[in-house]
Amino acid sequence: MAAAVSDRIATLSQGDGLVFGCDYNPEQWDRSVWPDDVRLMQQAGVGLVAINIFGWSSINPARGVWDFSGLDEIIALLHAAGIRINLGTGTASPAPWLTAQHPEILPVGEDGTVFQQGGRQGYCPSSPIFRAYAAEVVTRVVERYGDHPAVALWHVSNELGCHNALCYCDNSAEAFRGWLRERYADIDALNRAWGTTFWSQRYSSFDDVRVPGQALSLRNPGQILDFQRFSSDEQLALYRAEAAILREHSTVPVTTNFMVTAHIRNLDYWTWAGDMDLIANDHYLDRRLDDARGELSFAADLTRGLAQGAPWLLMETSTGAVNWQPYNLAKAPGELQRNVAAHVARGADGICFFQWRASTQGAEKYHTALVPHAGEDSDQWRDVVELGGLLERLGEVAGTRVAAGTALFFSWESWWAVENEGRPSEGLTYLDQVHAAHAALADAGITTDIVRPGADLDGYRLIVVPALHLIRDEDAAAIARAVENGATALITFFSGVVDEEDRVRTGGYPGAFRDLLGIRSEEFAPLLPGESVFLTDGTTGSVWTERLKATDADVVASFADGPSAGGPALTRRGAGEGQAWFVATQPDRIAYRDLMTRLAESAGVTAHADANRDVEIVRRTGDAGSFVFVINHGESAVEISLTGHDLVTDAPATGVVPAGGVRIIKEEV
Amino acid sequence: MAAAVSDRIATLSQGDGLVFGCDYNPEQWDRSVWPDDVRLMQQAGVGLVAINIFGWSSINPARGVWDFSGLDEIIALLHAAGIRINLGTGTASPAPWLTAQHPEILPVGEDGTVFQQGGRQGYCPSSPIFRAYAAEVVTRVVERYGDHPAVALWHVSNELGCHNALCYCDNSAEAFRGWLRERYADIDALNRAWGTTFWSQRYSSFDDVRVPGQALSLRNPGQILDFQRFSSDEQLALYRAEAAILREHSTVPVTTNFMVTAHIRNLDYWTWAGDMDLIANDHYLDRRLDDARGELSFAADLTRGLAQGAPWLLMETSTGAVNWQPYNLAKAPGELQRNVAAHVARGADGICFFQWRASTQGAEKYHTALVPHAGEDSDQWRDVVELGGLLERLGEVAGTRVAAGTALFFSWESWWAVENEGRPSEGLTYLDQVHAAHAALADAGITTDIVRPGADLDGYRLIVVPALHLIRDEDAAAIARAVENGATALITFFSGVVDEEDRVRTGGYPGAFRDLLGIRSEEFAPLLPGESVFLTDGTTGSVWTERLKATDADVVASFADGPSAGGPALTRRGAGEGQAWFVATQPDRIAYRDLMTRLAESAGVTAHADANRDVEIVRRTGDAGSFVFVINHGESAVEISLTGHDLVTDAPATGVVPAGGVRIIKEEV
Amino acid sequence: MAAAVSDRIATLSQGDGLVFGCDYNPEQWDRSVWPDDVRLMQQAGVGLVAINIFGWSSINPARGVWDFSGLDEIIALLHAAGIRINLGTGTASPAPWLTAQHPEILPVGEDGTVFQQGGRQGYCPSSPIFRAYAAEVVTRVVERYGDHPAVALWHVSNELGCHNALCYCDNSAEAFRGWLRERYADIDALNRAWGTTFWSQRYSSFDDVRVPGQALSLRNPGQILDFQRFSSDEQLALYRAEAAILREHSTVPVTTNFMVTAHIRNLDYWTWAGDMDLIANDHYLDRRLDDARGELSFAADLTRGLAQGAPWLLMETSTGAVNWQPYNLAKAPGELQRNVAAHVARGADGICFFQWRASTQGAEKYHTALVPHAGEDSDQWRDVVELGGLLERLGEVAGTRVAAGTALFFSWESWWAVENEGRPSEGLTYLDQVHAAHAALADAGITTDIVRPGADLDGYRLIVVPALHLIRDEDAAAIARAVENGATALITFFSGVVDEEDRVRTGGYPGAFRDLLGIRSEEFAPLLPGESVFLTDGTTGSVWTERLKATDADVVASFADGPSAGGPALTRRGAGEGQAWFVATQPDRIAYRDLMTRLAESAGVTAHADANRDVEIVRRTGDAGSFVFVINHGESAVEISLTGHDLVTDAPATGVVPAGGVRIIKEEV
Repeated sequence: MAAAVSDRIATLSQGDGLVFGCDYNPEQWDRSVWPDDVRLMQQAGVGLVAINIFGWSSINPARGVWDFSGLDEIIALLHAAGIRINLGTGTASPAPWLTAQHPEILPVGEDGTVFQQGGRQGYCPSSPIFRAYAAEVVTRVVERYGDHPAVALWHVSNELGCHNALCYCDNSAEAFRGWLRERYADIDALNRAWGTTFWSQRYSSFDDVRVPGQALSLRNPGQILDFQRFSSDEQLALYRAEAAILREHSTVPVTTNFMVTAHIRNLDYWTWAGDMDLIANDHYLDRRLDDARGELSFAADLTRGLAQGAPWLLMETSTGAVNWQPYNLAKAPGELQRNVAAHVARGADGICFFQWRASTQGAEKYHTALVPHAGEDSDQWRDVVELGGLLERLGEVAGTRVAAGTALFFSWESWWAVENEGRPSEGLTYLDQVHAAHAALADAGITTDIVRPGADLDGYRLIVVPALHLIRDEDAAAIARAVENGATALITFFSGVVDEEDRVRTGGYPGAFRDLLGIRSEEFAPLLPGESVFLTDGTTGSVWTERLKATDADVVASFADGPSAGGPALTRRGAGEGQAWFVATQPDRIAYRDLMTRLAESAGVTAHADANRDVEIVRRTGDAGSFVFVINHGESAVEISLTGHDLVTDAPATGVVPAGGVRIIKEEV
Repeated sequence: MAAAVSDRIATLSQGDGLVFGCDYNPEQWDRSVWPDDVRLMQQAGVGLVAINIFGWSSINPARGVWDFSGLDEIIALLHAAGIRINLGTGTASPAPWLTAQHPEILPVGEDGTVFQQGGRQGYCPSSPIFRAYAAEVVTRVVERYGDHPAVALWHVSNELGCHNALCYCDNSAEAFRGWLRERYADIDALNRAWGTTFWSQRYSSFDDVRVPGQALSLRNPGQILDFQRFSSDEQLALYRAEAAILREHSTVPVTTNFMVTAHIRNLDYWTWAGDMDLIANDHYLDRRLDDARGELSFAADLTRGLAQGAPWLLMETSTGAVNWQPYNLAKAPGELQRNVAAHVARGADGICFFQWRASTQGAEKYHTALVPHAGEDSDQWRDVVELGGLLERLGEVAGTRVAAGTALFFSWESWWAVENEGRPSEGLTYLDQVHAAHAALADAGITTDIVRPGADLDGYRLIVVPALHLIRDEDAAAIARAVENGATALITFFSGVVDEEDRVRTGGYPGAFRDLLGIRSEEFAPLLPGESVFLTDGTTGSVWTERLKATDADVVASFADGPSAGGPALTRRGAGEGQAWFVATQPDRIAYRDLMTRLAESAGVTAHADANRDVEIVRRTGDAGSFVFVINHGESAVEISLTGHDLVTDAPATGVVPAGGVRIIKEEV
Repeated sequence: MAAAVSDRIATLSQGDGLVFGCDYNPEQWDRSVWPDDVRLMQQAGVGLVAINIFGWSSINPARGVWDFSGLDEIIALLHAAGIRINLGTGTASPAPWLTAQHPEILPVGEDGTVFQQGGRQGYCPSSPIFRAYAAEVVTRVVERYGDHPAVALWHVSNELGCHNALCYCDNSAEAFRGWLRERYADIDALNRAWGTTFWSQRYSSFDDVRVPGQALSLRNPGQILDFQRFSSDEQLALYRAEAAILREHSTVPVTTNFMVTAHIRNLDYWTWAGDMDLIANDHYLDRRLDDARGELSFAADLTRGLAQGAPWLLMETSTGAVNWQPYNLAKAPGELQRNVAAHVARGADGICFFQWRASTQGAEKYHTALVPHAGEDSDQWRDVVELGGLLERLGEVAGTRVAAGTALFFSWESWWAVENEGRPSEGLTYLDQVHAAHAALADAGITTDIVRPGADLDGYRLIVVPALHLIRDEDAAAIARAVENGATALITFFSGVVDEEDRVRTGGYPGAFRDLLGIRSEEFAPLLPGESVFLTDGTTGSVWTERLKATDADVVASFADGPSAGGPALTRRGAGEGQAWFVATQPDRIAYRDLMTRLAESAGVTAHADANRDVEIVRRTGDAGSFVFVINHGESAVEISLTGHDLVTDAPATGVVPAGGVRIIKEEV
């Protein structure tokens, strides 16, 4: 897939560099506004607009009633203006008549709550009735517009599984049983996989299996894990069903917008990516996090990983505040530019916004847009126009790649397994561990790829494996082989403990990595919230300790106090040509950065010398040259040693990046 | 209505000054206790008792079975003692047999939970079955007692909508559709009002509309807003149905007890007040609030606003602790007297308590009463007797009015709109904004009326408009006219943003007030909890900032830091004869007070010189003279400049109010 | 019962001292592991294993299908190894086929949520269908193994009522009505007991009564209290039904494992104990508590109280962390030994663990076990073997008794009543008050028995009555009689307030104890969280104050500030030969200890001189001698004055207990 993708994105921009786009919901506005919309799009350089995302109730307002007049008109208008279309299939939310007439479509929560119409995505993903009606919508849309010259991309549904990923209705239960029959064939295989001898849960027939609804006590973790897998697969099936219809009638690329972001965990995009003609992601700063912009960088790297290194499309982001967080902070001056630069730096070849014009009604009327409530005479709009200019100047960046010698492992299955019920500590949350490792790399100026278990590790000198709890034997072996062949690996606590079926490997933790690491852990000893321990090297750790023995490893640092006092905290083992390190606690941020620096040096991975916690630096390279993105998140100007032409100021690089500023330097050859 | 009300309350007290009353539930006690009850009522001077409030299961213990013997007896007993009766219709809670036999009456929560019998108010307000049975109860009661000479007031149901205001059952949904058909006639009108093009929510028929039950995502705010309106109307309809029956058979005034208090928000009493023959309110100190007694003052002022300035009745309050808050604090010494004085100061012509004798069983057995568990040999009872004496001495206050040159706007619709889903900040809560404005006025010694949007503003020199988010164009215009005619208005952030249908006014915030204020705000920039910003005048603000431009206004203070640093925070525009001020953050308490003082001075509104945060001063005036209520909430004695006769000590005013003390001074002419 | 119990436990250990046992779930492991299990059991000295606890789906994997082959085999294996069997009836959790085919068995929550299969204990306790199927399981098991020589104890179900104690389904409602008919016979008796005149709740027929499901408001506390009693009785009925079947076919003792622990409150074990052939308890350190090991000591004392002073069996505990708390902390070095010593010190004659071998799958795979995931080459296993040795050395302790001159009252009914809805303060939680009193005694070195209301108080010099809110007149009178006869009683606030039907006694608190104490309290005045008040003796109190008068008592200390300033806080009245004290607040921990020391001295109760907050000392005595358990929980070594032979070190006592150490000294005669 990867090879063709740059071309596909290039197509979206008509070969003219980076894509600048947005969601456009003209049905919310009087037709008299539409020409003004087009004028302003052209003023800002918007070249790709997504329409018909939530079109169902407009094009199919009642059972059997179809009305494409509005869509015809807007497509013609955009086409005439030379603006290309990212055409939604229109199935993101069923029209009210459908759920009113078929309430059995409504999704059901863990505790049996039937979720009502009136929001969005209010359907059971396994509902045959929903699927049939949705297929008709897609068919009508593609039959009508499949060969329209303005249509450049198909946008299947919208943010699939954002709200309705886990449905516990009878339709879902029936589909789950079908999925299990497929997976296990034999009920005894299911019994073994789920360990049903515990608590008298042995099944004699697939018919007796249920979805893991709310129970009085802890539930079966194998069942929960499989329900997560099933639920991700059901959403993917929705995509596949629509994509199949589209591809029957159209040759335009097909994708859907992923949600690689901190609060979405139910979709295993590693299994989805191969179905996409290009990878698109939605990303909004999450102000609920301690480090919202660190999460942005992580998400952008992970999106690039899903694209196998190829350019990708930021399908949705915001100019300013969103409206669905508890405290929807405005962006600080320059923050929009910094955010966009970070996405492009990490591989985005296009930046699209939700949405074109701020709604005056509906659930998201306080979500910012390209055209604010205040209208075009506003600082927000002037920023947008300026951003359009920058994206245009960055045109030659399109198609270049990020080069990284470091691989960071990420796994939705481990996310599910780590945060399953009955775990050692609620303080141990998967994403926080991954984010901490990614931030430590970033603080050390190290650019990293993000890879899936089983990835080809060739070319990676440094391999970081945070909390990779669930891992198959062969995937663990691949990491060991990479080390044997010369890589340096850092594996962190709770990794390798369980196999594909969430079964603990006996003989000592961390199971799959015990031999590689030359350690053997006998007992977990987590810490309370707010508690920290000292290590003998003067650093501190939090969240976790464990009672570890170094069977064939050097003890680099030990616990100086706390529940595992005296035992190893940081170990190193030479293995073949490489080294395997283990850390049994979450290092404080400075210690973690220093550890990454040490590992990178030993592994021969080059860090960006000027980068630090405040200064983000990433390089993209390709036929068009080498482009270094420098983003100064700090409150003081910084000096950098790079020279070349700065595409932000369109002038020679001065060696200084002002506070809050961005420099994108095309390096001299 | 207003004109006749004093007379009506005077009737309750038989012309003898203020009313002293209580709820009386003799059915909870053995008949042998009743004569003792009457003796003690007479000792304390209790003149009005509410009975039969929860009478249903006593007078109608089984389907078709009626037993009025107990009620006959207690009415006779009270009548013989010269005690007047506030007669409940008895429908506040259905008898268990009714919900047992008709479980379809039970109310349903947002998530589909069916609320069971066993508490109170356990019925769907839209249930035709409930309504039919309730009508029979009312009819039987009024037929029997409608012309009884002891009956002085009809008390419809009890605290209508306290618990069951929002019901999501199918009966409610059907009634909601009926209400919408009435409001919109045409489904397209509904679609426009709710902005249903957003998220594919367009309806083709009223039949497809549902109540806004729990959904997977944010719901339609227009639908939620109309459901609030509908729900308030349904409760009012319950009142009207009973009142109609009562008025058919009786000429005694009819009312129900409002709950103007911080935790009740579902009833728009502005639309109810006109149906009441007199305004009655229930009020309990809410210890969950930072400023419980400030809220008391606000609620009393709002109740007076509902009564259009006429005297009103405090239908329920407590002598000490309640039992339904998490921590039910006892009243401090003197606090009962201070609370009662505050209610009377702000227009109450009667003080009634829940309840006469503390229950020994049931859900509220730890709620204090006039006669405590300890019995008459108790400090509590002695305080009650003393209170009775004070109320008697205050007799000539009855019928006097509070005079205020300031109007504070309050709107339940804005409450609903501000706190709808998907708003910019959860830190922005309507009532807190209104309370802050009221407290600032009180701290500055300014007595204020509380008015509804659309109120006649004649005579008000100072107009305070806090967070009046939803306002109709014509109601905003009325404020502008008042300013043009010489008033000073203070409008606070988030006001004027949406119209009646919760639709944002485009072109810049604060929409409806933009021209009046001479400002244009482009973007909201709320603050995090605990965060504050400096203004250039050295004060601080919290909760909110926004990015504002003064298009035709003076910038009185700007933001010195924070997300809107450099922009205006406080503006002033001369408009016609008056001035229009805007504040874009929540000022700290001292700054807010100082701002009110400044505005009052400029507006020519006179403040009580001796009043401050600790010292509450309100004047009531009328034919009987001028009465100044001075309540010292502080821990030190204070000096005041007032002279006259003090009705508390029944002696000449000394110029000193002791710590925690109350003085009610009849001024010398 | 008491007399025979030591013998019964002795039988379990085959007369060989203390029992060392565990739960054993061989079905989770391949048969090839079983011989190794037996080898390791023998290595550690494990003599009693519980099997078939969750056997249902193994022995009855489908409707009508029975397979005892695995159970036959494991029983034979254990028997051959001389290991005795604690045989589960196998009904702890129904096999999935049963709830799949009979979903009407599933339990229902307060809000109507149907709890799904997939956890454990997923059945309605009142379900006739469940009961019928369970009876068949028990019958088959006892018919097959009832006279097997290895079976030493019957283990009915498992932790009955741990999760499903309160079920709100229609079956439960029907059973509740039956229970009420039995209790009240006449519906008017129920109306009186529940005070149904409040809020119109009068019933005319038992048919109209429902379970107290979620309501819109506070519910009827009498109904809730009776529902608690009923629910405890229903679980006991499950036990009785199984026990009856077992006793029909077997002469082996029958019991079930109690859960005397902080988070289980629905089972009134005082009413259960008489049905047990021996008392067994499950106990895990609860790390959510401030004082987890204090709770252990309390629970052990209460278990001994349930056993009427006879030895009892710790049926389940853990070697290290559990997995069902939010933060599952490992045990510190020596903590396992200290915990076990504390249980034995307080009367346990056997220590069993959940479970033998750590599961690799299922909901509790991160729960520690005797054999950890790491296997036998581990510190955890070596600790287990060491523990086995200690238990063997302690053999002669078996059958001895704890002697105490102090009685502490405990009542599940008071727990339910104190924490019913609508109480004065959510800060007042029953167990915290009882724990505080127990800790104060322990800190003062005073060993206490724990007794039920109505207990024979002969021989107790000191009687402690914390928050005994609900008490019958005759049970209060028994306490008064004990005082008259010379005992010293300490009664704490909120005691004695309500009678059996949760009805407040009028005339002043604390109702039932007013005369004995010579006080009269008129009003409660609870404190806010974090708030404390000073007493005139320089100590502090929290949680509560009240407005008290000493009518016939000495005021030992008064409130120096706070809402009851100036009133009595601690009173003493001489009554007959004894003294009755009352404390109206929760003393700080040091003050409470000092108070207990003072009371003990006055009562002539001897404290352990060397005991303190860190040093726990308890003595067991009997024909075999006198054994003093000294547990040093502190971080420094302590000196003790005891002499004799130390069974821990198997050497003469040295007078020193190291930090974290245990000494069990057989005293010289």
